Amino acid sequence: MTIPTDPETGEFHRAPSHFAARITADGRDGWPVEPGRYRLVVSRACPWASRALIVRRLLGLEAALPVAVADPVQDERSWRFTLDPGGRDPVLGIRFLAEAYAEADPDYDGGISVPAIVDVPSGKLVTNDFDRITLDLSTEWTALRRDGAPELYPEALRDEIDAVNAAVYRDVNAAVYEAGFATRQAAYEEAFDRLFARLDALADSLEHRRYLVGDTITEADVRLFTTLVRFDAVYHGHFKCNRNKLAESPVLWAYARDLFQTPGFGDTVDFDHIKRHYYEVHEQINPTRIVPKGPDLSRWATPHGRQALGGRPFGDGTPPGPPPPGETLPPQW
Amino acid sequence: MTIPTDPETGEFHRAPSHFAARITADGRDGWPVEPGRYRLVVSRACPWASRALIVRRLLGLEAALPVAVADPVQDERSWRFTLDPGGRDPVLGIRFLAEAYAEADPDYDGGISVPAIVDVPSGKLVTNDFDRITLDLSTEWTALRRDGAPELYPEALRDEIDAVNAAVYRDVNAAVYEAGFATRQAAYEEAFDRLFARLDALADSLEHRRYLVGDTITEADVRLFTTLVRFDAVYHGHFKCNRNKLAESPVLWAYARDLFQTPGFGDTVDFDHIKRHYYEVHEQINPTRIVPKGPDLSRWATPHGRQALGGRPFGDGTPPGPPPPGETLPPQW
Repeated sequence: MTIPTDPETGEFHRAPSHFAARITADGRDGWPVEPGRYRLVVSRACPWASRALIVRRLLGLEAALPVAVADPVQDERSWRFTLDPGGRDPVLGIRFLAEAYAEADPDYDGGISVPAIVDVPSGKLVTNDFDRITLDLSTEWTALRRDGAPELYPEALRDEIDAVNAAVYRDVNAAVYEAGFATRQAAYEEAFDRLFARLDALADSLEHRRYLVGDTITEADVRLFTTLVRFDAVYHGHFKCNRNKLAESPVLWAYARDLFQTPGFGDTVDFDHIKRHYYEVHEQINPTRIVPKGPDLSRWATPHGRQALGGRPFGDGTPPGPPPPGETLPPQW
Repeated sequence: MTIPTDPETGEFHRAPSHFAARITADGRDGWPVEPGRYRLVVSRACPWASRALIVRRLLGLEAALPVAVADPVQDERSWRFTLDPGGRDPVLGIRFLAEAYAEADPDYDGGISVPAIVDVPSGKLVTNDFDRITLDLSTEWTALRRDGAPELYPEALRDEIDAVNAAVYRDVNAAVYEAGFATRQAAYEEAFDRLFARLDALADSLEHRRYLVGDTITEADVRLFTTLVRFDAVYHGHFKCNRNKLAESPVLWAYARDLFQTPGFGDTVDFDHIKRHYYEVHEQINPTRIVPKGPDLSRWATPHGRQALGGRPFGDGTPPGPPPPGETLPPQW
């Protein structure tokens, strides 16, 4: 996998999503919400795809929007369905996610990313817009969500959530990649400093409140969680984000464990996929492709004590039940 | 710098020292102990050389055995005196340590390593036998050591010290390199498991006793310290020894800080040299040569509480005074 960086500055910047059609209740882009019509393609390794996995679980959209899990280790044709019998997704019938991209735009020659939502009847990619996908699951798929589904993007809090998300995207979600893929010292250090300054600020704001916005779990928590859950396993060493481990930051570590232990979060996390993806795919920064044995993951199950802060995790709703058959993960430690 | 590993197993094994003449009180190898005759060539980055720096300080041999500090970043000609004016060691007059190796053996084509002791009059390398050098400083250089110098290798404890040293060498000092330079997963995991099993055993033995052997600082503590002091800055991330940081292992972390804060230990440690050496030289495992900003080194100065265990750090002796002029290091954090 080639990681594009600026040859002058050594900076890495994420390419924007190319396919940004929206699946909506009214179908105004031509893609109406329909149960079973679409397939959510993810890698459990990928933090951007993991947002969608978590939101889908929290909202109970597993049956309405079935999932295809790609092999965590891409080859030069990118994400592939080598975990499935015969190396093909059993519903889409394709071997590589790129085939759905080509179905949508035969001339497309950009990157192949997850999460991706594919229209099953036509085999065409509808959207790889990771920023929008989860918001639309919350706001457009309302007719299909489970009883007791939480409001992850409540109207009254959207401005606040959007502001937190923008800062977390810039200084946390994206910054770890900018640190890890930097090819010049100055670019690395700029991202490193920005990351830890933001994490310090987030720790301050989470010391006396259980969640980032309001007193319930929102989209903002989902987006911070997907980076935090990868922090000690990957970003601390592989991406050199090593001022301290998450486990050495008491507030954020307790916050992250609280979410991990909440149904819909930890039950989507496959540390084996996470570790093998980063360490085996990024040969530019890990040429031996050795996958570290550490850290000790069992600490994710330790008590976090955050209940004492109050908060109503699901607001007026309820926690989701266990994952559906076929989505249960093996023991993680 | 090429790191030789076994192409079949992916294992790295340290080459034995080639030049093993001994500088002794009786001069039986032709190299008698004499003040000012020899030059100790080190890199402050190198754990093997750092043993000699610490023992020399503890014994007060700074004037008797002056030191030459190599640039922490080798080039293809290995260790070089680019930190000195004109890029030459001011006493030996050479630009590369390899020149002293060639003076001793024009046909030598093996590795160039530190610590190395060079005979100043002839310019010849005498020994690069890191395992023997420190023991001889303790046992052969006795006439030149300071008043109050400790007994780091007391006769009555040598069997015990040798046994600890053998285990620490195999499972700690060398194992971190064997983990870091492994090119196959199995070789890495074998070294990783051996390392952490040994660290656990050492933590057990140090929980209720202040030092490894007897109740004073010995050669055994010096040898364990040089790996521990590099652990979180380098081995945890760069060498993937990441079950846990040293700072997450309460007993060993307190033990290491106790030694670090003891005169003769921490005042030899240059974290800048350590980090730049490992991260800039080993392009096989860090192709970007980016040097991590973390971890937070100021924690090395925090209270360790080990005085409560008793022990007599210098036995019947005394701590060394401050480093001599020219050997004082810049602030480390």
